[in-house]
Amino acid sequence: MMRTRPLKVALLGCGVVGSEVARIMTTHADDLAQRIGAPVELAGVAVRRPAKVREGIPQELVTTDATALVKRGDIDVVVEVIGGIEPARTLITTAFEHGASVVSANKALLAQDGAALHAVAEQNDKDLYYEAAVAGAIPLIRPLRESLAGDKVNRVLGIVNGTTNFILDKMDSTGAGYQEALDEATALGYAEADPTADVEGFDAAAKAAILAGIAFHTRVRLDDVYREGMTEVTAADFRSAKEMGCTIKLLAICERSKDGTSVTARVHPAMIPLTHPLASVRGAYNAVFVESDAAGQLMFYGPGAGGAPTASAVLGDLVAVCRNRLNGATGPGESSYAALTVSSMGEVVTRYHISLDVADKPGVLAQVATVFAEHGVSIDTVRQQGKDGEASLVVVTHRASDASLSGTVEALRKLDTVRGVASIMRVEGE
Amino acid sequence: MMRTRPLKVALLGCGVVGSEVARIMTTHADDLAQRIGAPVELAGVAVRRPAKVREGIPQELVTTDATALVKRGDIDVVVEVIGGIEPARTLITTAFEHGASVVSANKALLAQDGAALHAVAEQNDKDLYYEAAVAGAIPLIRPLRESLAGDKVNRVLGIVNGTTNFILDKMDSTGAGYQEALDEATALGYAEADPTADVEGFDAAAKAAILAGIAFHTRVRLDDVYREGMTEVTAADFRSAKEMGCTIKLLAICERSKDGTSVTARVHPAMIPLTHPLASVRGAYNAVFVESDAAGQLMFYGPGAGGAPTASAVLGDLVAVCRNRLNGATGPGESSYAALTVSSMGEVVTRYHISLDVADKPGVLAQVATVFAEHGVSIDTVRQQGKDGEASLVVVTHRASDASLSGTVEALRKLDTVRGVASIMRVEGE
Repeated sequence: MMRTRPLKVALLGCGVVGSEVARIMTTHADDLAQRIGAPVELAGVAVRRPAKVREGIPQELVTTDATALVKRGDIDVVVEVIGGIEPARTLITTAFEHGASVVSANKALLAQDGAALHAVAEQNDKDLYYEAAVAGAIPLIRPLRESLAGDKVNRVLGIVNGTTNFILDKMDSTGAGYQEALDEATALGYAEADPTADVEGFDAAAKAAILAGIAFHTRVRLDDVYREGMTEVTAADFRSAKEMGCTIKLLAICERSKDGTSVTARVHPAMIPLTHPLASVRGAYNAVFVESDAAGQLMFYGPGAGGAPTASAVLGDLVAVCRNRLNGATGPGESSYAALTVSSMGEVVTRYHISLDVADKPGVLAQVATVFAEHGVSIDTVRQQGKDGEASLVVVTHRASDASLSGTVEALRKLDTVRGVASIMRVEGE
Repeated sequence: MMRTRPLKVALLGCGVVGSEVARIMTTHADDLAQRIGAPVELAGVAVRRPAKVREGIPQELVTTDATALVKRGDIDVVVEVIGGIEPARTLITTAFEHGASVVSANKALLAQDGAALHAVAEQNDKDLYYEAAVAGAIPLIRPLRESLAGDKVNRVLGIVNGTTNFILDKMDSTGAGYQEALDEATALGYAEADPTADVEGFDAAAKAAILAGIAFHTRVRLDDVYREGMTEVTAADFRSAKEMGCTIKLLAICERSKDGTSVTARVHPAMIPLTHPLASVRGAYNAVFVESDAAGQLMFYGPGAGGAPTASAVLGDLVAVCRNRLNGATGPGESSYAALTVSSMGEVVTRYHISLDVADKPGVLAQVATVFAEHGVSIDTVRQQGKDGEASLVVVTHRASDASLSGTVEALRKLDTVRGVASIMRVEGE
């Protein structure tokens, strides 16, 4: 049975994503009405440049006063696709206080202030949905929050930034260096003029904080996420990876400790075996691998960014929030009851691939091996290559804590026979 | 805020899946209570063999009278993991009429009677959830029904039967024939003693009917699904596939026509390029590729069967249904408003790989090519191999309708120079 009074949607921001949201709301109005159970109408669009002509959006809906729009009181759902912390945060809070539910695609804000925003939503008995904030079109928040609600997630391992995956894939397939691959990504529009947020892992870290919180039913702040960018990954690292049957990806990894009482979240480049499903994720695609007690290993794959894919996720949330509103109910809110400890990077346990430049003389391997042993880091394989008085040692360890590995590396640097630590890379996905 | 009166769950069936559901409900009771907002308790377990000792299930909960259990009136959610049409259908209907919502893993029943069951659920204002009915633990129903609710799905292409994927993967990797690979699957427990439902595609067809209905918001009956098993796939077919840079998978394919007014659903073996993400789905894993207007290409991957994975999906639904119940609401029901025509197999358009045994003499290729042309089927490539007076022709076509292809093959069989049609296989995923 169809209700005839339409639900009113206010759109904050009308850039690449917002304009797609508006377009689909118009062109698919009948489908959306059928799926929601009531028509849904665009009641206002807040923009910074009102003079710009926006195809399909009546000029009378356009306003520069976003605050007045969210305060109107007759808005059912506010869709926030401005991005950034302010004014988005204040606008969302104001929207809840004036009776609206909120759909947001704002990963930075959710990662930093998700708990506070959820609290305001709950006080006002409203929904806060944000599928689009992580991995664009890929359904991930809903599967973690709802489909796996009866399971125990132990690990989330994902490629959640398309720009860096494009660059690393290019380096892998062509042998290019970082700068060359970045230049191509920029030329093709996959990287922004200032690529810092992507290549230094800030974007992925925000997503890791959000995913870890949802997966483990606990709060993980952005500051809790260890972050290491991929600007120092070299063509030589890819050659080393290939020798191990691996490739290199920038991964967001959220893990529950073996005893279940603590979690960690981190973003860094890592080697993963070519046989791992994440290894074959090409170009700017995203994919997230989820491991849980009962379901086992699941993977979710798709476009991680772009106007239309992000709009698809926003509209899925919009339909859900509208249905909840018609039902007089709200969906699952923040679930942080587990209140687990977030451990520091030093406690993370994984494997390492370490390249050392060493003196080409007898006894070096014994010295190096002794240092590993003294720090409790067990060696899996060593490969030694020498030429012209110079030599390199490539050590792959068994699983060890990051703290033990750091101690080992510090001690190795002090050895006379070690001329330098050429690279250290974690090995994941085994 | 936690409600203290527990929600009551009746479990129908306590086999591989049911016992896992009961186990997780017990061992994860605290987590489930937190995630639902109220404790959830097992109020009864209907089984056929009451004498069997079931670890962790108190004997006083066990009954052979499933009907009395679903009629009790104090049951909040009935979990049906019996399988088959009857008595499951009557029990589910009775459960709705006596105030319970239902979570089911019953693909055969949902495919055959989904519309009728949804109608009873709706009349009684109750939920019918069945994530576990398709592709085990992989979240698929919920993403299609909710995450993509604001998008337009055009195609669903999936490996939804683990048994056949195990067999085909084995044939691909070892060069084994069908029978040899089936024997290994049986020995390892991947295939049942009577593998008909799997290898003849009945299981996949049920899932295709369910997926098509949800993806396209229309009704697709089991009879609407074209079905062809994989028992006639040979080692020679795999060699042909390899020559084309392909492998062979048993696919469930649900498509919307280009003009959007009709849909098709079918299950058959098909060649797909090795570069397609579905090509690398190994062993008994399942994966489903979804193509939509806005989101683009998404893939969902994971274990498609097994007690624990299926229980994970059942429990996700159980949490959702319990939350709805506490909210006094129901989730999205059947969405069949689009009421699209379901076209027959003849109207399906795809590419074909055809192997012919022909006489090794001049003019044969010209004759064969003429037949294709007369039926409007355009040839992409032809490969001719001859020895000892026998020859084979391998033809790969451009896209053509199934009806045109059938007409072509019928005419080819009548040619004196064509000794036999060795194999016909569709080529998908391009």
